[in-house]
Amino acid sequence: MAPNRTVEIVEVGPRDGLQNESALVSTAAKIAYIEALVDAGVRRVEATSFVHPKRVPQMADAEQVMAGVPRDRGVSYIGLVVNERGLDRALACGVDEANVVVVASETFSHRNQGMSIAEGVRSFEAISGRAVGLRVTATIGASFGCPFEGEVPVSTVASLARQCAEAGADEIALADTIGVGVPDDVKILVDAVRAVTDLPLRFHFHNTRNTGYANALTAVSLGAAALDSSAGGIGGCPFAPAATGNIATEDLAYALRRTGVHSGLDLDKVIAAAAFIGTELGAALPALLGRAGDFPGSLSAERAR
Amino acid sequence: MAPNRTVEIVEVGPRDGLQNESALVSTAAKIAYIEALVDAGVRRVEATSFVHPKRVPQMADAEQVMAGVPRDRGVSYIGLVVNERGLDRALACGVDEANVVVVASETFSHRNQGMSIAEGVRSFEAISGRAVGLRVTATIGASFGCPFEGEVPVSTVASLARQCAEAGADEIALADTIGVGVPDDVKILVDAVRAVTDLPLRFHFHNTRNTGYANALTAVSLGAAALDSSAGGIGGCPFAPAATGNIATEDLAYALRRTGVHSGLDLDKVIAAAAFIGTELGAALPALLGRAGDFPGSLSAERAR
Repeated sequence: MAPNRTVEIVEVGPRDGLQNESALVSTAAKIAYIEALVDAGVRRVEATSFVHPKRVPQMADAEQVMAGVPRDRGVSYIGLVVNERGLDRALACGVDEANVVVVASETFSHRNQGMSIAEGVRSFEAISGRAVGLRVTATIGASFGCPFEGEVPVSTVASLARQCAEAGADEIALADTIGVGVPDDVKILVDAVRAVTDLPLRFHFHNTRNTGYANALTAVSLGAAALDSSAGGIGGCPFAPAATGNIATEDLAYALRRTGVHSGLDLDKVIAAAAFIGTELGAALPALLGRAGDFPGSLSAERAR
Repeated sequence: MAPNRTVEIVEVGPRDGLQNESALVSTAAKIAYIEALVDAGVRRVEATSFVHPKRVPQMADAEQVMAGVPRDRGVSYIGLVVNERGLDRALACGVDEANVVVVASETFSHRNQGMSIAEGVRSFEAISGRAVGLRVTATIGASFGCPFEGEVPVSTVASLARQCAEAGADEIALADTIGVGVPDDVKILVDAVRAVTDLPLRFHFHNTRNTGYANALTAVSLGAAALDSSAGGIGGCPFAPAATGNIATEDLAYALRRTGVHSGLDLDKVIAAAAFIGTELGAALPALLGRAGDFPGSLSAERAR
């Protein structure tokens, strides 16, 4: 694939960013956070998760959040869906996209999803078959490594991508769930997945070991259509709040702009949205741009002269 | 240039890492920090700076540090030298290398060095001509951008590299002093500098806007011989202590190992050295590997099967 000059940023702060936070964020604050992100130019937002409220209490207000977000701004709202019951809820409240996770390691799949890899594929097939009118993403969790089993075979990831594509996925997302990958992993996985499907590729990186931005820029250079990120870089493990979040939307957008890749985001407004949710969480944010300040301009004429 | 399978890590924590810290670190602690780094496998250490003690009080004990570091472990010790008086001190206490900074923007050069760019080159020539027996590095500061002037022309950086090479430099280092660059900058600068000199290239990245690791891995992929980093990622601006340090040695070494690039470092021991200096500074460290934990293994057979 050729490098993209435009990439979609999928803002996942409202879902992946918040879901591990033990302090409950009010529905009003979640809606205000999403409104600020939309105002900053985000056009795909993973707004919530349709899981059992006992499992993820932070996402118990999924319907209320979806009822409150702006629907007249051209934004595509994504709900994380883990089973058919979740799909029913997602359909009922009018999300635009369903994100369905299939995990690429048996142990992690059992612990996280309560099912085997093969059962995960069947669950994806069932959800995809009934998700009429929704764009459906198959996110392959632990694509870059498993906290229990270590290395994950590339062939497993490619096989899952192929099966999900055959089952009707509209997009394949590769997730470095535990933040262990490096750019060479990205290249290897892109090659392997490209060999089995032409679907748009999306990537989900955590900056757990400081490799997330390198991976994201590599993915873009290899033709990724979309990247997940969270304003402020929220989304860390609850035991190390400022350490292991998603890559931050503002830092990613800075690097993309300087690389000459269009993301459509207003950096100052993303920083403001991050500051808002940081205040709600009462936590220091892993994102750096808000602290360091912008450095205006981009490569091109200036650098090449 | 072809990608390297080995890269030298130049540990700059004892110099760039500590120099902006307002709380004075004892000479004994500096020596213990360096000993821990040497024990972790570091073979090039920027140990101190020979500047006026009133300008950088933290480096006033340069001679005492150099008198205390282990000299029987095959380590090359580097001193930052800004003028001939500093060179005399460096020679007197037996450093192995002199690192001399020439800044690529007029305003920054005047503010940081008290001289114009052209005067900086003449100063480099004077120091290089008298640095008998020392390896001399020309570090081109603000190569990726200037906090006062904005974009820095690539032609200025290339011209400085050529002039310093002609003046006897043994190595050219390109420094992203304010942490604004992206991987495409690295490519542009490598191409421009490679057109004027075949000297070994070293890079100095700060992670100020979360692009430092991406830049470092790109530099290695383009044949960089050496990378600067600081254990723990210390070295930030005193006004934002945990935000804007050098790239962290342990996080860099992790990414290199997983990429299949040999750095010779023991990650656990680097983490321990970082924890030691973090305790001395009483500050949280920007490095992430010590918090996240290692993920053993590297690309290759495991990933390719």
